[in-house]
Amino acid sequence: MEKGAYAVIFTSRLRDADGYGALAARMEELARAQPGYLGHDSVRGEDGLGITVSYWATEDAVKAWRGNAEHLGAQAMGRERFYDWFRLDVCGVERSYGFDRG
Amino acid sequence: MEKGAYAVIFTSRLRDADGYGALAARMEELARAQPGYLGHDSVRGEDGLGITVSYWATEDAVKAWRGNAEHLGAQAMGRERFYDWFRLDVCGVERSYGFDRG
Repeated sequence: MEKGAYAVIFTSRLRDADGYGALAARMEELARAQPGYLGHDSVRGEDGLGITVSYWATEDAVKAWRGNAEHLGAQAMGRERFYDWFRLDVCGVERSYGFDRG
Repeated sequence: MEKGAYAVIFTSRLRDADGYGALAARMEELARAQPGYLGHDSVRGEDGLGITVSYWATEDAVKAWRGNAEHLGAQAMGRERFYDWFRLDVCGVERSYGFDRG
């Protein structure tokens, strides 16, 4: 990821998975269509702990996604129903590197 | 996490899990003992995709952990054997918030 990009780290514990998969898939579709979306990775373990990292071109893109109307509805459902807890870190990417066996 | 902290996002695809668990457990033990370690979260899915986020008080703490001799050995084993690919993002935390059902 380029310096200047933003990474949003969403760490959560799921308590009720009923209906969560469809909502998460819809949010992924919606995020991909947002201006400034650069990509994301998401993993959830069998114990319900999950980490999703989404990458954004600018801070304005992060704010626009947070304030998206349909996303706000999903956020409310998350608090009311799906999550035991979550944490969200908004971060500025300073440097990235990687390895690929290719 | 407080503003000014660092988040290191390590996203990887495991190719060979044989012996990986013991190495990962040792690295976790070692990281916890490093100066400036603030915490971490780690999830790996059944498909081998994993995300580990570690949090550090300062950039120097990130650099010291990266350069830890035993950790350097583990990094080499990761490239040689354990991972298909990985990506690492070093990020400055700008703000955090959370929710806990309590």
